[in-house]
Formats: sequence, C-alpha cells, structure tokens
Amino acid sequence: MKQSVHTFEVATRGQSLYECTSVISQWVRQQQLQTGLLTVFCRHTSASLLIQENADPTVRVDLQAYFNRIAPEDGPYEHDSEGLDDMPAHLKTALTQVQLSVPLVSGRLALGTWQGIYLFEHRVRPHRREIVLHLIGE
Amino acid sequence: MKQSVHTFEVATRGQSLYECTSVISQWVRQQQLQTGLLTVFCRHTSASLLIQENADPTVRVDLQAYFNRIAPEDGPYEHDSEGLDDMPAHLKTALTQVQLSVPLVSGRLALGTWQGIYLFEHRVRPHRREIVLHLIGE
Amino acid sequence: MKQSVHTFEVATRGQSLYECTSVISQWVRQQQLQTGLLTVFCRHTSASLLIQENADPTVRVDLQAYFNRIAPEDGPYEHDSEGLDDMPAHLKTALTQVQLSVPLVSGRLALGTWQGIYLFEHRVRPHRREIVLHLIGE
Repeated sequence: MKQSVHTFEVATRGQSLYECTSVISQWVRQQQLQTGLLTVFCRHTSASLLIQENADPTVRVDLQAYFNRIAPEDGPYEHDSEGLDDMPAHLKTALTQVQLSVPLVSGRLALGTWQGIYLFEHRVRPHRREIVLHLIGE
Repeated sequence: MKQSVHTFEVATRGQSLYECTSVISQWVRQQQLQTGLLTVFCRHTSASLLIQENADPTVRVDLQAYFNRIAPEDGPYEHDSEGLDDMPAHLKTALTQVQLSVPLVSGRLALGTWQGIYLFEHRVRPHRREIVLHLIGE
Repeated sequence: MKQSVHTFEVATRGQSLYECTSVISQWVRQQQLQTGLLTVFCRHTSASLLIQENADPTVRVDLQAYFNRIAPEDGPYEHDSEGLDDMPAHLKTALTQVQLSVPLVSGRLALGTWQGIYLFEHRVRPHRREIVLHLIGE
C-alpha cells in the first residue's frame, strides 16, 4: 500500500467553475496505482469543489447564476468588511463542499462519463487557490 | 491492509430517495474487515447521495418537495435541451453530494441509529444509476 | 500503514456552530503519523459538519441566519411530530454534509489558514452529538 500527496494552485479570474479534471487525472496516472482512493481538498472558505457536467457549458452558466440567486450580495449580512461578495462566497462554499473523494478502479478514476471536477470560485477578484491531492492505494 | 471495490446499479423510477443501506452494508460485511473506510461514489451529475433519516418516511417526502421548491423546473435556465427536470437535477446534485465516506469500526459501518444511505434521483424518467464502493482497511 | 478510530461527543446547547478543530487536531497529532487521510463523520441527521472561516465570528452568525432563512420552521412540512425545528434540521443537514475528509501532510492536517472544522447543530434543545474520527496513513 502506498500514499502520495501533491498540492497545486489554480489562478482564478473571478466567479466561475474552473475545470481541474485533467490536471488531477494526470497526477493520479503518474502515481501508477491500480486501486485506491483519491481525495481532493480545497484549502479555502470562499471557493469550493464540485463534480458537475463537463459537456454542455450552459450547465455551468446556470449553476453560477443559481448560486448567485440563492446567496445574493444584498443579503442581510453582518459580515461585510471583506467586500459584498465575501459572505455570499462563504454561503456558497457551505452549500457545496471543500472535499471530494473518488475511487481509483483499474488504474482510472471512477468518474462517470459526464463528470468533471471543478474548482468553484465564489470571489470576484483574482485569487490563487490551493488544492491538496491525497492518493492511497496499490 | 486490504482494498475492495464494487460497482452496483440502482434502477430508478422517477424522483425519489432510494435506500441503499442494506445492499452496501451486506457487501461491506462480505469483505470481513474490522476497521476501515468505506467510500460510496455516484457516477452521475443528475442524481446524488444523501445520508438521511431512515425512520419516518415523511422526512423523505419533505426532502424531495423541498429540493423541488428551491430548484424549480421553471427557473431562468439556459440549459433546457435535456428536459425541464435536467437543470434542476444538476442543481440538486450540486447542493447535496456524489460522494460519501463512512468509517468502519469493529466490523460495522459507523452509521448512527437513524442514518440510512440513499440515492437521490432527481430525474423524472427511469434511469440506471451506477454506484461505486471502495473499502480500505484490515 | 496504520489506522486509528476514535469517537467523541459534543454537548450542544442550541443552534450554533461548535468548533472541533483543536480536539480533532490534538487526537490526530497523538497518532503520530506523517502522511494520511482523516475522516470526520457525524452520526446524526439533524446536525452536520462544516469547514468554515475561523476568524471573524460574524461569518458564523450569518451562516446560521442564512440556513434559518432558506430552511424556515414554517415551511409546508408533513414531518412535524418531532418539533418545528426538526424538519428544517434535516434539510440543513442535507444541504451541508455529515462527513469530511482532510489529508494529513508532513504530520499536519492540510486545513487552510482560515479553515476550522465545525459541528453545525440544527436543533434548538441541547443534544449530545457523536463524531467518529478515522485516520489512515503512516
């Protein structure tokens, strides 16, 4: 049984879903394991992770618009010292997740055909987001 | 230390919560481990996983109705080519999760008394949903 | 490769976010591993887990108020036999999560600077909540 860890950064340029599937899959392949568990962890509280459809890009447009509707900038928030988009960013992070685990089966991540792994940036200004990968298996 | 992986299908017949606890627990028991970590992974973007109350069935009725209210079919969506229930299905999947991990302690999943593992189908028409199980431990 | 499991209780006194980071980190340190994966599991369906900002306490005030707005006590619920706060508690649990995994890197949890691990109690009355920890690594 073997473990590997790796940290990489995503330079975000505003609210959007940034696909990380190929960066992650490539690193996993380099570890040359057949069976295992990959964990993806986002080290932030105003950006999150999402597994979502990687085909029609309008799905991601709708996802972003939806989260802006349910966690609007003009909510009755006490926390407003870091910008109007900050408290909604925390809410969107709470509604999604900062950690995802995906089984590795026969040397490949068990993602479905239409599943991609995305970093979901909730802040308006550019940020550097750190994502930690952990793989265990053999 | 040992690993096992297994894939099974759930044939869904419309929007509902389909309990998978006994199928999953049985497979876990067959692996005969004492301590470990089970990961349940749903290979879809319009169906998800939920650990919820397994006692009063009205909880599941309310859960389904609630998600239909907060992600309605008549939302202002751009993505509408796959049916009115498709974009709401992606939103409900984003709001819940496609992966759950449960510790195995003394040969049993550490689920609480009232916790059941459910596949949450968000599409109206029947689907075959693939769920991947990964268990590591000894 | 080694595994450890541990269960601890949090005595809650009403709806709030109860920080568990130091209790969890201390137990992890005692296991003396360098690389691994920690899984935190909440054995309930009306309380959940959240990784959120540990700095400005108004973030947690806003989080709690937000979830009370989107899952209000006066919703059209069928399940009302366990108190007005029970069905909203199930909804809030479904919208967040009962399981979190965090990689262990160089002997430390890979939490970001502003990330704390919280038990999110959704019930009004005091409860004893059981949290299971599972650590695998070496």
